[in-house]
Amino acid sequence: MLNRMKMLSWPQIWIGCGSTKVQVSQILKYCNSRCLGVVPQGGNTGLVGGSVPVFDEVIVNLGSMNKVISFDEVSGILVSEAGCILESLVNFLDNKGFIMPLDLGAKGSCQIGGNVSTNAGGLRLLRYGSLHANVLGLEAVLANGDVLDMLGTLRKDNTGYDLKHLFIGSEGSLGIVTKVSILTPPKLSSVNVAFLACTDYLSCQKLFLEARRKLGEVLSAFEFLDEQAMDLALNHLEGVRNPLPTALHKFYVLIETTGSDEQSDKEKLEAFLVHSLEGGLISDGVVAQDIQQASSVWNIREGLPEALMKAGAVYKYDLSIPVEKIYDIVEEMRNKLGHSARVVAYGHLGDGNLHLNISCPQYDDAVLAQIEPFVYEWTSKNRGSISAEHGLGLMKAEKIFYSKSPAAVQLMASVKNLLDPNHILNPYKVLPQSLSFP
Amino acid sequence: MLNRMKMLSWPQIWIGCGSTKVQVSQILKYCNSRCLGVVPQGGNTGLVGGSVPVFDEVIVNLGSMNKVISFDEVSGILVSEAGCILESLVNFLDNKGFIMPLDLGAKGSCQIGGNVSTNAGGLRLLRYGSLHANVLGLEAVLANGDVLDMLGTLRKDNTGYDLKHLFIGSEGSLGIVTKVSILTPPKLSSVNVAFLACTDYLSCQKLFLEARRKLGEVLSAFEFLDEQAMDLALNHLEGVRNPLPTALHKFYVLIETTGSDEQSDKEKLEAFLVHSLEGGLISDGVVAQDIQQASSVWNIREGLPEALMKAGAVYKYDLSIPVEKIYDIVEEMRNKLGHSARVVAYGHLGDGNLHLNISCPQYDDAVLAQIEPFVYEWTSKNRGSISAEHGLGLMKAEKIFYSKSPAAVQLMASVKNLLDPNHILNPYKVLPQSLSFP
Repeated sequence: MLNRMKMLSWPQIWIGCGSTKVQVSQILKYCNSRCLGVVPQGGNTGLVGGSVPVFDEVIVNLGSMNKVISFDEVSGILVSEAGCILESLVNFLDNKGFIMPLDLGAKGSCQIGGNVSTNAGGLRLLRYGSLHANVLGLEAVLANGDVLDMLGTLRKDNTGYDLKHLFIGSEGSLGIVTKVSILTPPKLSSVNVAFLACTDYLSCQKLFLEARRKLGEVLSAFEFLDEQAMDLALNHLEGVRNPLPTALHKFYVLIETTGSDEQSDKEKLEAFLVHSLEGGLISDGVVAQDIQQASSVWNIREGLPEALMKAGAVYKYDLSIPVEKIYDIVEEMRNKLGHSARVVAYGHLGDGNLHLNISCPQYDDAVLAQIEPFVYEWTSKNRGSISAEHGLGLMKAEKIFYSKSPAAVQLMASVKNLLDPNHILNPYKVLPQSLSFP
Repeated sequence: MLNRMKMLSWPQIWIGCGSTKVQVSQILKYCNSRCLGVVPQGGNTGLVGGSVPVFDEVIVNLGSMNKVISFDEVSGILVSEAGCILESLVNFLDNKGFIMPLDLGAKGSCQIGGNVSTNAGGLRLLRYGSLHANVLGLEAVLANGDVLDMLGTLRKDNTGYDLKHLFIGSEGSLGIVTKVSILTPPKLSSVNVAFLACTDYLSCQKLFLEARRKLGEVLSAFEFLDEQAMDLALNHLEGVRNPLPTALHKFYVLIETTGSDEQSDKEKLEAFLVHSLEGGLISDGVVAQDIQQASSVWNIREGLPEALMKAGAVYKYDLSIPVEKIYDIVEEMRNKLGHSARVVAYGHLGDGNLHLNISCPQYDDAVLAQIEPFVYEWTSKNRGSISAEHGLGLMKAEKIFYSKSPAAVQLMASVKNLLDPNHILNPYKVLPQSLSFP
């Protein structure tokens, strides 16, 4: 059982953890020997309370370990310390003609170590895959202070178990990531954006299938929003206008392509639009003619969380659901709630990731009781994930059984016991209390 | 310690393990209770002795669990039993307009469960990434017979530790994979192949950098072979002719593109060739004009293992090395061996994966003593991997420390103890004996 610190005027101790793995190692060794809880913290931009202390845990913030260690311009392999802010890596790579394989709204403050520890998803996953695909190596400090060097810079290495994957997405509960080696794609010169309207969800689905096939290798994003989401954006976001103003449509799809040949990519996208319009898959559509138009279209999609905040209280769910069923839960939720709240749906359709939002004038337990546990039960019944990209953190640790079998969760607890027998690392997070502190 | 079975007329028992996970579970439960060793076996095509018994282990061959369970044509997600032969999945998907994200020479007999258990690499890794990137879910039977359901069919799922990665590449030593869920890319219509000559290795490297940038999203293979390899192919493979016959060059590069637009892809590749010729990166080059020409070029590269077999004895090494250093070891080896043997180099340059072969008239301990441990020490010193894609199996288990730190190997052993405390699964493989049977 963890020791609780007492009599501190502040319940948390902030350790500016200096700049070396040795210091992180010493801190953990000390805390482990005294059973003191530790919260590893990056940019603190998570949405499930994974990087904040619950009681009196020691915060180990990695922000001052922020150096790029090496970059191999032949293979595009970047090695950096964990505290590098994502946007600073983006800028570093931009000068070299490369990009990060992930892009997030929080890029201005989130850190690469936190991204890796939470297996952050974001806008480029459809094209480049998850961090399990792109992280080549890690250095992590274990709970007892041991430094685990898995900092390979190789695309292929089949020598023993690939342990780094345990640390990707375990939210700092198995070790503190101190260095990262990551494969970065070359920056391609041609980016095109189209904004399309569909009359029903089945058309969005079919459009995705067509886009994968016709746009193939240049497809880099396939996002969707529904009528409610568009209405919210138009009413609450400054400077946003409807790119398809002649009518309000049931569904909107944002397609982005990224390739190496401006002319051929644009022709490909335009041909795709004409084909989709003729085939009746879309009812309207426009291709952004310049970078301003492209970013104003992206602003609609990316501004939705802000629009929801401005509209009042919001219950937010980040679900993975098989693509063909994504909109079923939205409609069921709408039927269930009637006029008591507004159901707003958008997300990374190409990844099967729905951001489901229930918006109402103020937080209301009666509304919440209609949403939960229904939303989790529905997702579980359809073999979805109750947290597609946000993780479990503190807020959803107890919900894990909706998406994982008891045997799998039990094995996770055994792995936790193996790597952190005193349970000092990010306590009360990820796994249910009953398993973490039996 | 494992029990050895006695008095059997055959040292191995073959169990045609029927067709359900329940049977696999029962077999493992029985063997675990009696400490009997078990060798999980797929198509038995591995190159390091990972799927063959050493003494009297029970073989559990998954070949009769060979059904496709489901295929989602919207998201391209295939769920199948572990015993499906890779080529049969390729054919199944071809009818649906999709491809497997991996392609191997052994596809006619290797099984998807074995591919996953060994993290098989192959020819498409440059484009689609490793199986850690493409496997979405697994069902595995643990040593004690427990069935672990991790058979998700979602691209994104951040609920707890992603345990499936432990089973990808652990060569059947942590559990027997019985079902697999895998993300398959759409089949694209346009495939082009070019065969180029470079005068030095630095040019091959620069050419790779240019190809990643100029061919970007359509680049699907970047393979290389040296003069010795070409000479061997021309002398030992039937029907092979040199596509660049005017001179013998120091290095050859095979570039493949796969895209959705025949005309634009071909133009892009031809422009790339002209540009590379003008810039002096290549000294000669040709683009295959039809599928016959393309496959005759691929035959050179794919026929090299056969050519080596025909040339006499061969010591084979499968190394990952930072791209810029790949050819250094070839030259050092050549200097070391002088005229006593022929050093032949080829491989997946785009993945940093060198297949280093030392060819001599017959096996010769004096030659071997010059190769080993030098090749492992050199690779280790340069932070390479002594097994890029072949795994460790029986033959290389003791070599693991050349590529992994003692702390990492110790943690692997702890994970093994956690999941298979009696060490019944694939004994004597992957981890060093001293750790497996302390």
